Amino acid sequence: MALELAERRDVDFVLYEQLELDKLIEHDRFAEFNKKTLDLIVTEARTLAVKELLPANVPGDRDGCIFEAGVVKVPEVYRRIFELYREGEWIALSDDPEVGGQGLPVTATSAIHEYFGGANTAFCMYPGLCHGAGKLVEIFGTDDQKKLYLEKMYSGQWGGSMLLTEPDAGSDVGNLTTSAKKNDDGTYSITGSKIFITGGEQDLTENIIHPVLARIEGAPAGTKGISLFLVPKIRVNADGSLGEPNDVVCTGIEEKLGIHGSATCSLTLGGKGQCIGTLLGEENKGMRAMFHMMNEARLGVGIQGFAMASAAFSFALNYARERKQGRNLLEMMNPDAQSVPIIQHPDVRRMLMWMKSYVEGMRSFVYYVGNCFDREAIAADDAERERWQGLIELLTPVVKAYCTDKAFEVCTQAVQTFGGYGYTMEYPVEQYLRDSKITSIYEGTNGIQAMDFLGRKLGMKKGRYFMALLEEMNKTVAAAKAVPALEAMALTVEKAVNRLGETALNLGTTAMSPKVMTAFAFAQPLLEVTGDVVMGWMHLWRAVAAAPGLEKHAGSLDPVARKEKAEKNRHAAFYEGKLRVAEFFIHTLLPTTMGKMTAISGVCDAAMEMPERSFGN
Amino acid sequence: MALELAERRDVDFVLYEQLELDKLIEHDRFAEFNKKTLDLIVTEARTLAVKELLPANVPGDRDGCIFEAGVVKVPEVYRRIFELYREGEWIALSDDPEVGGQGLPVTATSAIHEYFGGANTAFCMYPGLCHGAGKLVEIFGTDDQKKLYLEKMYSGQWGGSMLLTEPDAGSDVGNLTTSAKKNDDGTYSITGSKIFITGGEQDLTENIIHPVLARIEGAPAGTKGISLFLVPKIRVNADGSLGEPNDVVCTGIEEKLGIHGSATCSLTLGGKGQCIGTLLGEENKGMRAMFHMMNEARLGVGIQGFAMASAAFSFALNYARERKQGRNLLEMMNPDAQSVPIIQHPDVRRMLMWMKSYVEGMRSFVYYVGNCFDREAIAADDAERERWQGLIELLTPVVKAYCTDKAFEVCTQAVQTFGGYGYTMEYPVEQYLRDSKITSIYEGTNGIQAMDFLGRKLGMKKGRYFMALLEEMNKTVAAAKAVPALEAMALTVEKAVNRLGETALNLGTTAMSPKVMTAFAFAQPLLEVTGDVVMGWMHLWRAVAAAPGLEKHAGSLDPVARKEKAEKNRHAAFYEGKLRVAEFFIHTLLPTTMGKMTAISGVCDAAMEMPERSFGN
Repeated sequence: MALELAERRDVDFVLYEQLELDKLIEHDRFAEFNKKTLDLIVTEARTLAVKELLPANVPGDRDGCIFEAGVVKVPEVYRRIFELYREGEWIALSDDPEVGGQGLPVTATSAIHEYFGGANTAFCMYPGLCHGAGKLVEIFGTDDQKKLYLEKMYSGQWGGSMLLTEPDAGSDVGNLTTSAKKNDDGTYSITGSKIFITGGEQDLTENIIHPVLARIEGAPAGTKGISLFLVPKIRVNADGSLGEPNDVVCTGIEEKLGIHGSATCSLTLGGKGQCIGTLLGEENKGMRAMFHMMNEARLGVGIQGFAMASAAFSFALNYARERKQGRNLLEMMNPDAQSVPIIQHPDVRRMLMWMKSYVEGMRSFVYYVGNCFDREAIAADDAERERWQGLIELLTPVVKAYCTDKAFEVCTQAVQTFGGYGYTMEYPVEQYLRDSKITSIYEGTNGIQAMDFLGRKLGMKKGRYFMALLEEMNKTVAAAKAVPALEAMALTVEKAVNRLGETALNLGTTAMSPKVMTAFAFAQPLLEVTGDVVMGWMHLWRAVAAAPGLEKHAGSLDPVARKEKAEKNRHAAFYEGKLRVAEFFIHTLLPTTMGKMTAISGVCDAAMEMPERSFGN
Repeated sequence: MALELAERRDVDFVLYEQLELDKLIEHDRFAEFNKKTLDLIVTEARTLAVKELLPANVPGDRDGCIFEAGVVKVPEVYRRIFELYREGEWIALSDDPEVGGQGLPVTATSAIHEYFGGANTAFCMYPGLCHGAGKLVEIFGTDDQKKLYLEKMYSGQWGGSMLLTEPDAGSDVGNLTTSAKKNDDGTYSITGSKIFITGGEQDLTENIIHPVLARIEGAPAGTKGISLFLVPKIRVNADGSLGEPNDVVCTGIEEKLGIHGSATCSLTLGGKGQCIGTLLGEENKGMRAMFHMMNEARLGVGIQGFAMASAAFSFALNYARERKQGRNLLEMMNPDAQSVPIIQHPDVRRMLMWMKSYVEGMRSFVYYVGNCFDREAIAADDAERERWQGLIELLTPVVKAYCTDKAFEVCTQAVQTFGGYGYTMEYPVEQYLRDSKITSIYEGTNGIQAMDFLGRKLGMKKGRYFMALLEEMNKTVAAAKAVPALEAMALTVEKAVNRLGETALNLGTTAMSPKVMTAFAFAQPLLEVTGDVVMGWMHLWRAVAAAPGLEKHAGSLDPVARKEKAEKNRHAAFYEGKLRVAEFFIHTLLPTTMGKMTAISGVCDAAMEMPERSFGN
């Protein structure tokens, strides 16, 4: 009865009934897999998450990381789970088997990452960085670099990181001052200081491979003069064995609101002796490489946020079903009435329904973007490939920013569902609230995502990718209109889609006018309503996908018949839930989105035109 | 330049230009005060807050409370500030001088509590409970009880608490099991266990007076059989001296997300020996008394939440003005452009404007409710008195729930404004996020407030108080319409007010129909839109109040002239800010409220009609 992290039935519903993963894997690329093998892999991931990662989540938070004399100790409980994670080969799931990956469809790995991230996000940063940094080596590395590093990174023998941020160069990376000087042997000596480096130092792996952004002496200012280097914590001999320590010194870790098990390090390179690195990719092309990792990481952060929301919802739902307090509202006047589980109280139901609608909508959204990667990979021609690639580019900032903002709200509602207990450390939800907050900040703040969306993505190829998104939405609207029980929802979503098109066009035009500053003050609202409409679309799509199952198990799509059947039959109950949650989102949340779009179209200039001193003295 | 907590100029603007406190204090009741004395008192409070309470906020969080063998040690830094707070006689500010109060208008004490709560909410719980518990003694106590306890509580010599919650009786207080048995001498022996007791044990005061809810043996079940008792931690002799310890044992304190300096205690009464208390008020009338304290506490919690938002905004604004990163958007293509303070970036401006609009709107709202108390106190006749009393009753759940929900959102945005630094404990904002979360939970969760609003307050006296609220709003609309520069805002607010009336009527009617459960699933949304429209009203009122000042200092209300002048003149800048922030709220946030009202009127029944098992398996 109790949910253990994500509801598996809904995970499978999205994979197979909505996104038709079973059809996708008929393609040669996925010849190794069938539904049964994928099911087994997801089951294994879920077991690892529930039995191992989750029990280590609270201890990892309480113990945190310890910094002493340049050494970072991760929580002791992480050692076992890191070994299990490595042994299970969970690091390079969807990568090419030729380079040590598992070749899984990204659609399926989304489900796996939902379980892992929901169970223990702080821990998952370490294997996540093995992969993220490894991916850079895979794509931009020379044969030598790949031979030396790649297998060990994808297998988790060596850790990874990403040395980007400096005290005055975070969102503004072009401002960085870390420098590189070419040595006679073709290597580079790196000098500089970096901050906020996740996994920059840790004692889980025998070595750590740091991709480092730095400027080669004499290179242009700004982002055009930035190159990427590979800097191992311990130098690697030509035969792959470990050599002398490099001069990479951890000078401290951050005390943070959450993800206490994830070490956030300050590093000094070349401060004492020689910090030697090799160029990764071409000189002065570091930003392009960095963005590759960043885009992967941004999607990853979106999933991470969503995964925590999914887990927090499962805890809240279980609690609301178990915790008895107060009488049912209809029995308020009956002195003999017993206390009921709080899920019966309308306001608790509202919170649960609200959380469920966001969690399930985000699940579909996040898996869908994974699905776009798979569809891109098996595209029949360039045009199709470009379409999927375009959708990925367009949706990356939306997944990152929208899902992480909503995830934090879901975690907040989960705390609220527990009442006073939710505020105590006796229950897990306050940790989810603390841990999830970072996701709106790192890998580019959500404000940066919104700027990217309005300033770059919306207008790419003259808006063709955005039009493609609207077309995909309208396909679902058309399918829903064909089902009488879904018609009202379809019409509401259709209006929202049309309105989104107008709103985006209008704001995009304003962004190219003298009112550009004001337009960008609406970048976040535009991203938010785009996310809302995507969610409306996803819920409508879920309803379309659920209708056959509901008709089968309830005998009809008539609301009264459905409800009766759903009370008795768990399959009918499941599908009935899809329709009801879709109704909730579309009828009670999308109207608010319409109001938000009215506000965006008004482009009130108060925020930008008000003199700065008027903010307060 | 940097704000130190609340912007004093805006505090004074609300007190005098919006709420006309100078006219109010012409009344005999406030003969002791003139504007100068009130200004001095607010200045003193501000100084105490900035110089003493605020520097103790972080240490109080880091040290927290320590529980050892039944004793609770509060953070060491609290001792000095508690003494200063006592010496300054800040505990009973608006109470009758005859019982040890200062007799201040509540309007002014709202400002004082904004400074104190913004500086150090966790600490303020202790003096706050001296007052809250003392108030019960003042109102319901016998002459003997008053003589023994009151002065010592209002002066902070003895602490207070409120023993309500039990493990199975929190929101459902009628379920409590603590019992009282009458002794031959008229005292009662109390037996039971209480949890979540703020200040239930501490080492700041020599004694603690606990009001305790318990059921006299044989009394009816439910809330009808609950009585209130006064139980001192240490028994008090007839001459006021301290006697033997009573049997009140602290068995532990909660580890919490925030307010670490505030001890949240579990207490056992009469577990070992005799826990002796005296009846406070009448037998079985404990709930009435408790609600008296609760209503005061609910308003207090609303102020507390708002005060933290106000402080968090001041930190975010200061940071955004100092922190340089990235080029101005208009200079993006200029390689020689320098980094600018982040307040120049449109998305940061949006966040600041959003925070400012909530903080200033809430300031007006919260002070206004304080003002209603003063107007009630000096009402010329019963009808007027009832009108103000009705507005207070109606607005209490709105202040409590709306202000605390929005406060948490403001604190969240403050963290976001700091970027990665906001997530670290190096900056104060993450603590505000943690501390503020409790305000949506305690003193009745915000869901309980929404039930109270829809189920009880809205329909009181056939909706007369709600109509009175709409009338007050419409007065401001009429005043704004008379100023051409404000007309567009006035029309938008007018529409929102009318729509609120319809929405509330519609939902109130549904709540009395067979769709009652579904109606109550919209109680929170109704409370939220009510709060939104109140905020729109407050902003319009602020604009009306600012117009004369703006005209005076800018020479005209023409937007171009205003802006030019405001760049140069700080008075013009201040008033220009009022109009611009009002525009921002009314034109970019109220449209969303209209969308929310559309959703409420749709009364989608999905949340209540969906079978429970459809929530997930």
